[in-house]
Amino acid sequence: MRTVDWDSTNAQVKLIDQRRLPGSLVVLSFSRYQELAEAIRNMTVRGAPAIGVTAAFGVVLAAWYASPPTLEEARREIEKASELLRESRPTAVNLFWALDRILRVAEAPYDDLDALRQALLTEALRMAKEDVQTNRQIAMHGSALIEDGDTIIHHCNTGALAAVDWGTALGCIRMAHEQGKRIHILVDETRPRLQGARLTAWELEQYGISYEIICDSAAGAFLRGGKVQKVFFGADRVAANGDVANKIGTYMLSLAAHANNVPVVAVMPLSTIDLHTPRGEMIPIEERDPAEVLNLQINGEPVVPKGARARNPAFDVTPHTLISAWVTERGVITSPFDVHFQTILETGSELI
Amino acid sequence: MRTVDWDSTNAQVKLIDQRRLPGSLVVLSFSRYQELAEAIRNMTVRGAPAIGVTAAFGVVLAAWYASPPTLEEARREIEKASELLRESRPTAVNLFWALDRILRVAEAPYDDLDALRQALLTEALRMAKEDVQTNRQIAMHGSALIEDGDTIIHHCNTGALAAVDWGTALGCIRMAHEQGKRIHILVDETRPRLQGARLTAWELEQYGISYEIICDSAAGAFLRGGKVQKVFFGADRVAANGDVANKIGTYMLSLAAHANNVPVVAVMPLSTIDLHTPRGEMIPIEERDPAEVLNLQINGEPVVPKGARARNPAFDVTPHTLISAWVTERGVITSPFDVHFQTILETGSELI
Repeated sequence: MRTVDWDSTNAQVKLIDQRRLPGSLVVLSFSRYQELAEAIRNMTVRGAPAIGVTAAFGVVLAAWYASPPTLEEARREIEKASELLRESRPTAVNLFWALDRILRVAEAPYDDLDALRQALLTEALRMAKEDVQTNRQIAMHGSALIEDGDTIIHHCNTGALAAVDWGTALGCIRMAHEQGKRIHILVDETRPRLQGARLTAWELEQYGISYEIICDSAAGAFLRGGKVQKVFFGADRVAANGDVANKIGTYMLSLAAHANNVPVVAVMPLSTIDLHTPRGEMIPIEERDPAEVLNLQINGEPVVPKGARARNPAFDVTPHTLISAWVTERGVITSPFDVHFQTILETGSELI
Repeated sequence: MRTVDWDSTNAQVKLIDQRRLPGSLVVLSFSRYQELAEAIRNMTVRGAPAIGVTAAFGVVLAAWYASPPTLEEARREIEKASELLRESRPTAVNLFWALDRILRVAEAPYDDLDALRQALLTEALRMAKEDVQTNRQIAMHGSALIEDGDTIIHHCNTGALAAVDWGTALGCIRMAHEQGKRIHILVDETRPRLQGARLTAWELEQYGISYEIICDSAAGAFLRGGKVQKVFFGADRVAANGDVANKIGTYMLSLAAHANNVPVVAVMPLSTIDLHTPRGEMIPIEERDPAEVLNLQINGEPVVPKGARARNPAFDVTPHTLISAWVTERGVITSPFDVHFQTILETGSELI
């Protein structure tokens, strides 16, 4: 069961509906790229690696269902699809990376529509497969940073649900657990959409990893109390200087860890690193519907007074100075990020 | 309509049920101190100044309804009541301060039960009246720190609902608004019990003050974005060195403000300052029922997976090094807290 998958019998994209978890495990099928773009926007699928691969499959759908089924019409649909998908969410750079990659395949010459379709599908399937391999390598590198007995604070969801499989930060944690290390996770509930309380807790239940949910605002008390050895999270975009845009709350968590000398570990595939963005301040930050903040209920009753207003930035930027390590599929980058990242690119060596 | 009040017709304590707001404005009446202690524990009434005065009225009830109605039985009941009330919540020192104060009255010699009852009631009513006056003075001093055009992040609820009337940090904000200063409040929703989203938003609606609710974890993004001029919150206990125990999340908020050179203002009556506690680490921190974290619903469905566990520390400690000003009824204390606080005590002068 993968977060994003291709149904070859029906030529459809399949997504686990992450809005329904943990209550129900529902799989949705898509044959229209417009609906797939909406599924990214409304967070049926979320997580930087997962939405990248989903967008690539969206381009496949555009070619597959072009009507009339001609090469020309398919190219027109691909252009429309890539524009629509590109606008679905602004912050995670994997979306743009994945679209650029599959569009390079789309732009090659083909004899007929079927050749184009097959080339696109092959590329999207390769990206999905690579995503799993990449995340496994990330998990190998990141798990080496986790020691027996560690208590780790984890923000948002970065597990199998945030990628095609396995995940980034939570993948490292799962790998450490499979290596027999005894670990305990303090799961930031991650307001407003509660990806921690809903999705990370659900994954940890399945992996049999010890955890407790905490309010995001409680992380500081545990860090100051000396109860935490590491902080782990993923990334939606890393600037060229190592600044990390990630789920709202990551910055405050990192400040509290840094103030208490607890290592802050950001985990991401290389495709999340955006060399075209020099610094974190230049990363576009999505502001989502205030209803996500206001729609809470307790005992079936709404929480906020009538007429209440809210702000809902979905991401924040953590400056590289607060981060101890960036885990990638090529190895662990330590400070200064820009120097060591260049070394990884140039030598291909693993930097653990 | 006061948060805590004495109903002289029926000799009962009246409390606004803060668990029901903003959906319903329900006033509960109490004639048994046992139920009043439970109302403090279950947060029918909350806020450091409010629970202090409530506890004092609890001692009045113990004497009022002693059975048989003798001076001796009343003294026995007062002792039991004060023990029970003392155990209701551990962190806010106002509870202990208020009990100590009314017990000094109880321990004086009296001719008969009625004289004791009247002395206790007089003292409790005086404490309620003083609380309002104190908070008005606090608001005068604190409002001087607020400038026209300020955007202020406020944590938890520190308004009229947290005291007998008027409140501490929110009292300063309300006073600044009444002085004609144009201000905007970013209201931390304050997980897990959402006192910000429920109570502070409700109060601000009534005062006509511009506000938006934010997730606690979003405060850092607004602070880093240069959108905020001040951070205001109350206190449950201030140690002798100026460390502040307050609602969970205050520490992370203060770290983020401090990192971005935004002044952090803690507001409290002098009765919240506990000279018997040298440093913040020595303040007992209440850990409440994990259900407060786990009981969230969205669209009527529970958020967390079956079997989920949680931790729920209700307070954290903000070190004095992160705090710019402590507002009291005698004036504004600036760093270093211990020196300037002594000056206030010795000279009685106002230190704005």
